Amino acid sequence: MTALSALRLQADALYILDQRALPFEQLWLRCTTVEDVAVAIETLAVRGAPAIGGAAACALVLAVRTGMPLPLADARLRRTRPTAVNLFAALDAVGVALDVRAAAAAWLAKDAEMCAALGRHGAALLSDGDVVITICHTGALATCGQGTALGCIRSARAAGKDVRVVALETRPLLQGARLTTWECEQLQIPCTLITDAMSAHAIDTLGVSKAMVGADRIAADGSVANKIGTRTLATVCAAHEVPFYVVAPTTTIDTNAANGAAIVVEQRAADEVRSVRGSPICGAQVAVFNPAFDVTPPHLIGAIVTERGVLRAPFIFAA
Amino acid sequence: MTALSALRLQADALYILDQRALPFEQLWLRCTTVEDVAVAIETLAVRGAPAIGGAAACALVLAVRTGMPLPLADARLRRTRPTAVNLFAALDAVGVALDVRAAAAAWLAKDAEMCAALGRHGAALLSDGDVVITICHTGALATCGQGTALGCIRSARAAGKDVRVVALETRPLLQGARLTTWECEQLQIPCTLITDAMSAHAIDTLGVSKAMVGADRIAADGSVANKIGTRTLATVCAAHEVPFYVVAPTTTIDTNAANGAAIVVEQRAADEVRSVRGSPICGAQVAVFNPAFDVTPPHLIGAIVTERGVLRAPFIFAA
Repeated sequence: MTALSALRLQADALYILDQRALPFEQLWLRCTTVEDVAVAIETLAVRGAPAIGGAAACALVLAVRTGMPLPLADARLRRTRPTAVNLFAALDAVGVALDVRAAAAAWLAKDAEMCAALGRHGAALLSDGDVVITICHTGALATCGQGTALGCIRSARAAGKDVRVVALETRPLLQGARLTTWECEQLQIPCTLITDAMSAHAIDTLGVSKAMVGADRIAADGSVANKIGTRTLATVCAAHEVPFYVVAPTTTIDTNAANGAAIVVEQRAADEVRSVRGSPICGAQVAVFNPAFDVTPPHLIGAIVTERGVLRAPFIFAA
Repeated sequence: MTALSALRLQADALYILDQRALPFEQLWLRCTTVEDVAVAIETLAVRGAPAIGGAAACALVLAVRTGMPLPLADARLRRTRPTAVNLFAALDAVGVALDVRAAAAAWLAKDAEMCAALGRHGAALLSDGDVVITICHTGALATCGQGTALGCIRSARAAGKDVRVVALETRPLLQGARLTTWECEQLQIPCTLITDAMSAHAIDTLGVSKAMVGADRIAADGSVANKIGTRTLATVCAAHEVPFYVVAPTTTIDTNAANGAAIVVEQRAADEVRSVRGSPICGAQVAVFNPAFDVTPPHLIGAIVTERGVLRAPFIFAA
C-alpha cells in the first residue's frame, strides 16, 4: 500500500488510512462492514469530500459481500456527514448499479481521472514562482486520485514550475498542519506552516500570490461550502487582491442547492475546539461554536476549477 | 492575592501569576531579581503590553533592593521583547526617578487609572445586546488594572448593558482560549470560544456586532501592532461592516514610529506553532513562520480608545 492513498479496496476488506493518526503513525483501518466505514467517515478517519464519496462507494461493495440490503446500507451511510455532496452522489451512482462492485471501481477510477484533469486545468493558472496559500488538506488523501487544490500544485511542479505552499494549520482538527505538510514533504513540495489567523500578515510578508482551496459542496450560484475558515481566507485574499481559486470535481456541484443558504453546515462536538490532540486548551465548561464548514460567497471567488476546465464568474450551474 | 491580578509587588519579592499555566493551574512565580522578571517576560509568564510595562517597573524596584546598577537592569529588561512599547515607556519613566519604589508604585496606579478611564470611554461605544468579537486576552491579567478591550466590556456590563463576548482562541499560544474564557468565567461575562479562522462565519451566525482588541504599539499614523491575527480579524470586520475598535492606554502610542513599517515585529520559536501545550501537531522538520504580532493599517480601524477618550480617523499622534 502506498502511503499517499486514502483507500484500498481488497478482497478481504476495505483498508482506510487513518488520517486522525497522521503524520505521527500510519495505521490502516480494516473495514469489513458498512458500519465500519460509516464510523470511519463520522470520526474523520477518512475525510475530504471526494475520498468520502469513494469510501461510501466501497462500503456498498462491503454491503453486497456481507449480505446487507443496499437500502439499509445507503440509509446508514447518508446519516454520516451532511455537507459533502460527493457522498450522496457516490451512493446515487453506485447504489442503483446492477454490478455494485464494478460501479464502485468505476467511481474510484473516475475520481482519479477527474483529479488528473482538474490538476492540468488548475496548473495552468499557476506561474513559476507562485506562492499558494491553502487551507485544510486537498491532496491525494482527500480524494481517490492526486487531490484537488494540492493536486494542481503537484501538476504545476511536475510541469517544471517552482510553486510553493503556505499551509494554514486549520483548527480545530489541524488537517493543514498534520496532512498538508506531511503530503508536501512526501512530494518534496516546499511548504511553510502558519496559524489560521496569520493569513493577512502572511500575504504581505511571505509573498503569497494566489490561494487554492477545495470544496465540499458548490451551490448552483457558485457559493462554496468548504472547511471552516475558507470564507475568512477568501475575504482576506479579496482585500489584498490575491486571486482565490476553488478546485473540485463536478461531483461536488449540487444544482439542487440554489445558493449558500440551502447548504446544511455540519456542527461538530465542542470538545474538538476545547482540546488539541487530547489536551484541553480551556475549561471543560467553556461555551463553544464548532461548525465544520463555512460558505464562501461567489463574489470572493476568482475561478472554480473542475475536470472540465476553468470557470469564472458569474457562476451558474444547472443539472 | 486575588486571581485577577497579574502582579503583586510585596516586601520580599515580586509575585507574577504564571499565565502559561492558566486556566489549569494558578501558580505564582516568586521573582527576587531582575533576571527572574526578565525571564518571566521572555517566556510569557507575564504578557499583555501594559502588564509587561508594570512588571518592568517592578523589576527596577528589585534592582534597587538587590543592589544591581539601574543601567544594567534597564539594559537587561529592554532586551526581553521588542514590540510592546509600554515596556520601554515604563523603564523610561521609572528608571530616572529619584525614588524608584515610589515611581514604580505610581506607574502601576496610573496604569490602573488609565484602564478605568478607557473602560468608561469604551463602554460608551457598546450598546445593550452587543456581541463583541475579540482576540488574545485584554483583561485584568494583561494590565495593572481591569484591562483594555475586555475592561470596556466589563465596564459596559457594570453599567447594565447585556454585552457578550466571542473569543478567538488565538493560536499559537491560545491566550483567547486559556485566559479570555477564564477571566470571562470569573466575571460572569457570557463568552463563546471559536477557532481563529471562524471569524467571517461567526459574524453572520453569532450576530457579532462589534470588535474590540488591545494593542502592543500604536504608530503615529494609527497603525496598530497587536497579537498576530488582529489584522485578519480587522480585514474581515471591514468586509462585513462590523466596527473595529482598538483599546489601549496612551502609553502604547509610539510617536517615534511614523507608521507600521517602523514597528519591529518579534519573531518567536517555530515550536510554538509546531506544538500545542507540549504535543506536536506536525513533523519536527516542518518549516514555520511565527511572528508574534501583525500591524493593522489605520483604514481598518473605526476608533482608538484611550484613557483620554475616543479617537477616530484620521489618526495623527504627536509627542
